[in-house]
Amino acid sequence: MAEAYQREFFNVSFPVEYVAHVEINRPEKLNAFKEAMWLNLSSIFRQLSHDPNVRAVILTGAGDRAFTAGLDVQAASTGGALAQTEDATAEPLDSARKANALRRHILEFQSCITDIEKCEKPVIAVLHGISFGLALDMSLACDIRVSTSTTKFSVKEVDIGIAADIGTLSRLPHAVGNLSWVKDICLSARIFGSDEALQHGLVSSVYKDKAEAVVQAIKLAATIATKSPVATLGTKEIINYSRDKTVAEGLNYTAVWNAAMLQTVDVKDALLSGMQKRTPRFSKL
Amino acid sequence: MAEAYQREFFNVSFPVEYVAHVEINRPEKLNAFKEAMWLNLSSIFRQLSHDPNVRAVILTGAGDRAFTAGLDVQAASTGGALAQTEDATAEPLDSARKANALRRHILEFQSCITDIEKCEKPVIAVLHGISFGLALDMSLACDIRVSTSTTKFSVKEVDIGIAADIGTLSRLPHAVGNLSWVKDICLSARIFGSDEALQHGLVSSVYKDKAEAVVQAIKLAATIATKSPVATLGTKEIINYSRDKTVAEGLNYTAVWNAAMLQTVDVKDALLSGMQKRTPRFSKL
Amino acid sequence: MAEAYQREFFNVSFPVEYVAHVEINRPEKLNAFKEAMWLNLSSIFRQLSHDPNVRAVILTGAGDRAFTAGLDVQAASTGGALAQTEDATAEPLDSARKANALRRHILEFQSCITDIEKCEKPVIAVLHGISFGLALDMSLACDIRVSTSTTKFSVKEVDIGIAADIGTLSRLPHAVGNLSWVKDICLSARIFGSDEALQHGLVSSVYKDKAEAVVQAIKLAATIATKSPVATLGTKEIINYSRDKTVAEGLNYTAVWNAAMLQTVDVKDALLSGMQKRTPRFSKL
Amino acid sequence: MAEAYQREFFNVSFPVEYVAHVEINRPEKLNAFKEAMWLNLSSIFRQLSHDPNVRAVILTGAGDRAFTAGLDVQAASTGGALAQTEDATAEPLDSARKANALRRHILEFQSCITDIEKCEKPVIAVLHGISFGLALDMSLACDIRVSTSTTKFSVKEVDIGIAADIGTLSRLPHAVGNLSWVKDICLSARIFGSDEALQHGLVSSVYKDKAEAVVQAIKLAATIATKSPVATLGTKEIINYSRDKTVAEGLNYTAVWNAAMLQTVDVKDALLSGMQKRTPRFSKL
Amino acid sequence: MAEAYQREFFNVSFPVEYVAHVEINRPEKLNAFKEAMWLNLSSIFRQLSHDPNVRAVILTGAGDRAFTAGLDVQAASTGGALAQTEDATAEPLDSARKANALRRHILEFQSCITDIEKCEKPVIAVLHGISFGLALDMSLACDIRVSTSTTKFSVKEVDIGIAADIGTLSRLPHAVGNLSWVKDICLSARIFGSDEALQHGLVSSVYKDKAEAVVQAIKLAATIATKSPVATLGTKEIINYSRDKTVAEGLNYTAVWNAAMLQTVDVKDALLSGMQKRTPRFSKL
Amino acid sequence: MAEAYQREFFNVSFPVEYVAHVEINRPEKLNAFKEAMWLNLSSIFRQLSHDPNVRAVILTGAGDRAFTAGLDVQAASTGGALAQTEDATAEPLDSARKANALRRHILEFQSCITDIEKCEKPVIAVLHGISFGLALDMSLACDIRVSTSTTKFSVKEVDIGIAADIGTLSRLPHAVGNLSWVKDICLSARIFGSDEALQHGLVSSVYKDKAEAVVQAIKLAATIATKSPVATLGTKEIINYSRDKTVAEGLNYTAVWNAAMLQTVDVKDALLSGMQKRTPRFSKL
Repeated sequence: MAEAYQREFFNVSFPVEYVAHVEINRPEKLNAFKEAMWLNLSSIFRQLSHDPNVRAVILTGAGDRAFTAGLDVQAASTGGALAQTEDATAEPLDSARKANALRRHILEFQSCITDIEKCEKPVIAVLHGISFGLALDMSLACDIRVSTSTTKFSVKEVDIGIAADIGTLSRLPHAVGNLSWVKDICLSARIFGSDEALQHGLVSSVYKDKAEAVVQAIKLAATIATKSPVATLGTKEIINYSRDKTVAEGLNYTAVWNAAMLQTVDVKDALLSGMQKRTPRFSKL
Repeated sequence: MAEAYQREFFNVSFPVEYVAHVEINRPEKLNAFKEAMWLNLSSIFRQLSHDPNVRAVILTGAGDRAFTAGLDVQAASTGGALAQTEDATAEPLDSARKANALRRHILEFQSCITDIEKCEKPVIAVLHGISFGLALDMSLACDIRVSTSTTKFSVKEVDIGIAADIGTLSRLPHAVGNLSWVKDICLSARIFGSDEALQHGLVSSVYKDKAEAVVQAIKLAATIATKSPVATLGTKEIINYSRDKTVAEGLNYTAVWNAAMLQTVDVKDALLSGMQKRTPRFSKL
Repeated sequence: MAEAYQREFFNVSFPVEYVAHVEINRPEKLNAFKEAMWLNLSSIFRQLSHDPNVRAVILTGAGDRAFTAGLDVQAASTGGALAQTEDATAEPLDSARKANALRRHILEFQSCITDIEKCEKPVIAVLHGISFGLALDMSLACDIRVSTSTTKFSVKEVDIGIAADIGTLSRLPHAVGNLSWVKDICLSARIFGSDEALQHGLVSSVYKDKAEAVVQAIKLAATIATKSPVATLGTKEIINYSRDKTVAEGLNYTAVWNAAMLQTVDVKDALLSGMQKRTPRFSKL
Repeated sequence: MAEAYQREFFNVSFPVEYVAHVEINRPEKLNAFKEAMWLNLSSIFRQLSHDPNVRAVILTGAGDRAFTAGLDVQAASTGGALAQTEDATAEPLDSARKANALRRHILEFQSCITDIEKCEKPVIAVLHGISFGLALDMSLACDIRVSTSTTKFSVKEVDIGIAADIGTLSRLPHAVGNLSWVKDICLSARIFGSDEALQHGLVSSVYKDKAEAVVQAIKLAATIATKSPVATLGTKEIINYSRDKTVAEGLNYTAVWNAAMLQTVDVKDALLSGMQKRTPRFSKL
Repeated sequence: MAEAYQREFFNVSFPVEYVAHVEINRPEKLNAFKEAMWLNLSSIFRQLSHDPNVRAVILTGAGDRAFTAGLDVQAASTGGALAQTEDATAEPLDSARKANALRRHILEFQSCITDIEKCEKPVIAVLHGISFGLALDMSLACDIRVSTSTTKFSVKEVDIGIAADIGTLSRLPHAVGNLSWVKDICLSARIFGSDEALQHGLVSSVYKDKAEAVVQAIKLAATIATKSPVATLGTKEIINYSRDKTVAEGLNYTAVWNAAMLQTVDVKDALLSGMQKRTPRFSKL
Repeated sequence: MAEAYQREFFNVSFPVEYVAHVEINRPEKLNAFKEAMWLNLSSIFRQLSHDPNVRAVILTGAGDRAFTAGLDVQAASTGGALAQTEDATAEPLDSARKANALRRHILEFQSCITDIEKCEKPVIAVLHGISFGLALDMSLACDIRVSTSTTKFSVKEVDIGIAADIGTLSRLPHAVGNLSWVKDICLSARIFGSDEALQHGLVSSVYKDKAEAVVQAIKLAATIATKSPVATLGTKEIINYSRDKTVAEGLNYTAVWNAAMLQTVDVKDALLSGMQKRTPRFSKL
């Protein structure tokens, strides 16, 4: 099964039934991202989304040093988006044409990361070691964020002269409960630890070290995987919808959603199993 | 006055001037809800909303064991919404017709709970003992949530194969400041305590036990009841409006709202009382 | 340079390069606000917004006793908005005409305070001493809020018979992560301290006393002032935009914004400086 | 069946299978509305919404002179909303308390008219004769509007000193395609005819006289009643939803809605009937 | 009274009681706009908005040849926004800094035109002769648009290489009812006449020539000026609000607005006048 | 160049410089759509969007009989979405799982059609002959719609038991200006002609026959292709954005968009060409 998920710079394994483990695998560069990587990431999560054998996913970085150090700035400044800011020798574009090229590029990059959010299965990010820049963009597109006692976080983008544009600035104000802190970390690009991340709501649990965090994340994923996949899909979808909408819109959407989804046999199975004190087995989605 | 509020499964009392105490009263079933109960709940809160003798409300469950254990699943699976998922012998509906029947049912149920939110008077929920499923749907429609050191919370719905649909998933992302935690508790259905509830923002105060929590809730309600009812109505209304809208929309709505409401004589009374160091008496609303 | 900013009731100084310090200066009245003051405040912040020599701003109150005690109620009840609630001898307006006059007045007052939010440069509020009513309206329009161990906060408005209408009720539910606590403090008008403010997300840091808080705020402002002004402008703008919009809208806006802004030479300068371990100098905005 | 719909001031009949005809019946007063009437109207449409024997509705006024002349101003100025503007002898309310009483009253009145829009079955309004004020509020909550060559339309409200508040101002800008004309007729309160109404999109068909218009409306209703009730419910619901939302929101809602509704057997029945050149018979909803 | 409105490039007169006539006065340049003009326009409309002696406004261009030919491109390309596209000798800005300067400039220009929309009094635009570019931006911020048999319309902007940015593209899709036509005229920049403008909903009336159109516009303004100013203010405000919002939001806003505004004595005056067959005289707003 | 666009069921040609002509090519089946076709359509328009040699597109159907008769119902009921409504022999899914499969299918189908709307270049649909069902979904995603004197339109979906779900119900209320007519045609599925389509705003021009319509569409496309591609891209993007947003949001977005796009050299070229009475040549985008 893992073979179907072979992509350069990523390992995908299945530690427990119905649980996928996606590992960013470029440890020699602190798991820094270049274009091929976000295209592969997107492709993996689009596949996981419809894979009936997967019900929960965890996302980590290979090695002990970093979840990811963020964008591979060197790669970006030679062939990527940041390169556009210098006049290429071949064809000096006027500012408006450059702007449109940049817009296309950013929209495509954002779209790759948003594929994590669109994945029908819950995704748990384990933020460990260096977790800079893109680490936040990506993990904010995940459903649950946990970290370790030594995780180093930073919204690094202002340090290279740009406003973060792959999702952090759009998702962070909806993910945590202290807007003053959001602006503090985004404007100063300072490095902070798991204590602040937990206090202000960026992560929901902090573990001793990466090993422990991974064990706990798999455990949580395994718990989620025992639930009805119809129920977890609906729960993820409706929370994401409601985050972005008024309460009245959320309620109406829920009613329309559940008009179909309450017809699942999983409800009967869950109720019966409950009475019979056994674990229900739900069919695939 | 309490007589006007007699409904099956509820006690309504008036412990302090202008303060109503609504108690869910089905302790032998852990205050679990069946259809008659949410219809009665709605009827009580619609009446409280316009009652000039009420300025603040507290909501508790009878007995020490539970605020409410949630939906009475047994009742629901024989005559209610969940029963729809099985083919009734009489008339096997096709999926689309079942879906519409479910949609109607959910919208009506949601509407009953939303009547707490629509009540013009501030409502304080005292979450104590078992507070599962519907306990969260209901208390999230209240204005202020307090709990006790032994409250057991759970967003229980995924355990019966469904996505919570009476309000928790729509209101929770707007009520607390840690979206990672929201998804953790909603996807895992795990039981958590008041420490987590306070840390992540689900409740604003935790008291030793139910008795203490009720005393403090009444005290807070009594304080609110001493304020101008024009001012507290506006405060509740504008916060709820602003939660769902942009800041610019909130500001404009506030200006239109206060265009009328600043004309109240309560302002003069409050200012005079302040200067004269006495408690103002505001007329009814 | 400070001369260009001379306005009654305000001191504006420049403690560090690119950092402006705006001080509310009416300490004999606990920095309470009358109409001339919010007009001057607006005028100062509109000027700071376009001043190429300013990249970050801090806002404090003169003296040790108060950031501000809020609206100067005495002034308001003789010549201002609250005066409208009594029949003036000259021309008794009917309720609708009074309502429109009040609406105009509130909209103008709100607009002055919103000029802090619209200021292109990040603004840090140092809440110290008495910080009542308008102190919250104003600081919630700032980007970052810090306080001291002895700050006394209160959303005071219900105590004078009105719902807060200059921004607190519209911005608070988007700024902190505990809606139950928001309603608690707004409905009870109780005084609370920095511990609660930090716990529930109203401020992001608490310092020993005003002196220390000002030092730290200037330090933070100075750090921000070393960043590319193109990057900090974008960061402030996109966070404010995203606070009010869905994630999808935030992402698209970011792409359009950065289509222009990524073309800045600051990116090249920042990258080079990073490699050369020196501090970049960005040109003015 | 008509008996179940007996309400004062209304006749309800069933001219064709699955088609209900609701007639406003106070012709001696030009079908002018007093409070009992909008309460009855609401009650009728809430019942029609869930009545499995109804698939389309037409709405007319009794007699030849008027669909309705609008609000019964005389009744309103003695016991209703407009009476509130004078000081009642019994209890002179302050402006803010009066404002809240008016707000409650308007919200309830609006809610009654909105029950036409919420009715799950398509509603066709036949505007004939005098169609002033409330005639527009009501017919804009209907799905389809037709009129006669002699219909007299007017958005009458500014002539009695108020802005129309039961729905015309909220629905008209979304119902017709000439905003300049919308403001012309709403600000001038001038009387206009079916030619303008058709040209600018207020009605979709104009017939010779009331008799002909009613015949054609019943014919259209009968056509709609031959369609799958699952399909017409979805069509009405999704158009109303989309009118109020972005295209992207409309598309997503449609996908969730049809996830359930495409499972109807009506699709198979409709396809088979199409091939066999016969009229399908759909089961009730 | 006209003296208070003296501004360069504009004539303001008062042809009828309570009616102001604003005339763009640069006929030798086909009333083309340069920066001083939109600043003056804004200043005039902000003053009219609060002037108790004005209840309706008409807007025309001086001379027979043009309402306005649009932006004075020559002026713009030497000192204004379009000049920014060339490198000025003095200080070559990088693209991002230029972008921010342009953004500030466009926002300020838009804000001046939006002051027509924000004016509390209804505004009627008489589009005559050449009505290109800015003519549409401005008239779309007016409430009612009328034209003459020889008016020449064009959304001219693509012909100078830009997307119209002072309001046409934002307001047109909400003002007319044929989106295909909107894109046709905006993408082709072709010149069209009053027949198309009327057919597709850009204007609501067409008159023989400018003289006739002005007479009729003044007549319409005079009619509006006889209505209660409380009622016309509310009508304009609520239609503009509703254009931008869902029906449910529009209804709620209307209820809050009218909570204050229904308390006007104008209702009693209007009702009495109606019964007594005389014209009511409303007091100033 | 046409070779790069070879896809089954489509012809793509380039009749004029910078103009692409996409022809649906399955005339023997009245150009009815099966799954391969909408996937190919999407692929073509995604390619056109970024093709620097294309500045405007027209869309027609091959043959004289039909633009398209809509969904190929026979194909759909054997292997496609409608087949899902019958129990497949292999694996009888429960209703909830079927619902999710349908949701995925509809979202993917919608996304293919939306690629026309997302195409950066203006698209003109020539509706001729039979234009049923999907013909409307597709052409409503185009920018400009023209038709012929004999075009037969129908929103056909209710006739096969479903609510139109590929875009008609979401886009139509924003595209035309008579909501009553929208519901009439969507609920009755009746066939109507170009006269109604033009009157109510579905098309913006009607021509004698297909040949003439194609000639005129190419002419319009050619005109658009002579404009600055920076300007037409912005015009399309901002109109689509504004259709879905408030005026205030539209204005702000326009300012940010044009901050980059006004820096184009096309403005200088267009101005110079205008003065020199010659046609400008803009570089590629």
